[in-house]
Amino acid sequence: MTEPTGPSLQLADALHWRYATKQFDPLRTISAADWNQLQQALLFSPSSYGLQPWKFVVVTSPALKQQLPTACWGQNQPRDCSHFVVLAARRSVDAAFVQQYLQRIADVRSVPVSTLDGLGAAILGKTSRMGDQQLAWTARQCYIALGFLLQAAAVLRIDACPMEGIQSDRLDPLLGLSGSDYTSVVACALGYRHAADRAALDAKVRFDAADVVISL
Amino acid sequence: MTEPTGPSLQLADALHWRYATKQFDPLRTISAADWNQLQQALLFSPSSYGLQPWKFVVVTSPALKQQLPTACWGQNQPRDCSHFVVLAARRSVDAAFVQQYLQRIADVRSVPVSTLDGLGAAILGKTSRMGDQQLAWTARQCYIALGFLLQAAAVLRIDACPMEGIQSDRLDPLLGLSGSDYTSVVACALGYRHAADRAALDAKVRFDAADVVISL
Repeated sequence: MTEPTGPSLQLADALHWRYATKQFDPLRTISAADWNQLQQALLFSPSSYGLQPWKFVVVTSPALKQQLPTACWGQNQPRDCSHFVVLAARRSVDAAFVQQYLQRIADVRSVPVSTLDGLGAAILGKTSRMGDQQLAWTARQCYIALGFLLQAAAVLRIDACPMEGIQSDRLDPLLGLSGSDYTSVVACALGYRHAADRAALDAKVRFDAADVVISL
Repeated sequence: MTEPTGPSLQLADALHWRYATKQFDPLRTISAADWNQLQQALLFSPSSYGLQPWKFVVVTSPALKQQLPTACWGQNQPRDCSHFVVLAARRSVDAAFVQQYLQRIADVRSVPVSTLDGLGAAILGKTSRMGDQQLAWTARQCYIALGFLLQAAAVLRIDACPMEGIQSDRLDPLLGLSGSDYTSVVACALGYRHAADRAALDAKVRFDAADVVISL
């Protein structure tokens, strides 16, 4: 096996470097340039059909961050981090939203929106067959975006803590999502580790490849 | 805004470069060194509690790849790509699996496994409260790994096609997963685009940041 170089080396280093940050340094903030890169990773995340059935709520307001632990089982990362990103999924996929997506394709690719009728019908056919599982599906798309955000942060050496421990019923009202088409499904605190975060010292635990990879 | 350089530039380029490849060149294969990097991205993917409730089935056998379209709604990417990765999630999280994870932590960090009893109880408490939704949760973890895999592939300039269109009831038997603790939830074809793949020419469609980002 040749030694990795260039992007490979950078990626491998980043994968080893990252960890779920338990304690953020409240005095350090992500620069506008770095945040722009992270936002690009979110915006360019893949999703089924390219539908992007999500909103990304980015909290940097100190006053609002102060209230977040009460909606996150008392965890302090949302309060102490620089940027707290809540990934919110569409509760359902309706014809109006699909039309908005088709119009966007038509605009970007300079094609008549009528040429996209088949795609629209395919999306609505699939999602209508899901019945009340549409949110489960849109939520899974958010997890792809979470993966994109976390790996991008690692490459840029920005610390992150993915957080499933959010209380949507408390968080949605704080974020103005109540009664909207979107609800919070998972979140990610981003910023810089506190010097006192002992979790940074823990060896990373992963199963051996032989235990999780099946080669056929 | 300063122009991105180094890792930022590389990441931004990669995000723009990638697309869901519709047609792979069946004559090109991913090198062992590159595959090793992609596998590292899978192995190092984050998951809730670090539990890694997944298996990654990697199909490179030509004979097996030939059979895959019949389990993927007739799509040919699984047949023509270099490496077809099926992300399989644990159907449920039981005490034996959690113990295996705790033992791994104990081994890697050289701590007595008894010091991890609280973590084990927390994981089992959470998963048992999920009832029959455990697979939905483990499946979401697989989507984080899918995001990791897709971004890593883009950085390494390896083409990919994420595929939800798999038929688990047909795919699991082909992969030897039937009756196992795991079931296929999503897949990703990896390799190199065919010169004839017109999808490579399509402009990438994303909503404007103003439409998906809510800054608070």
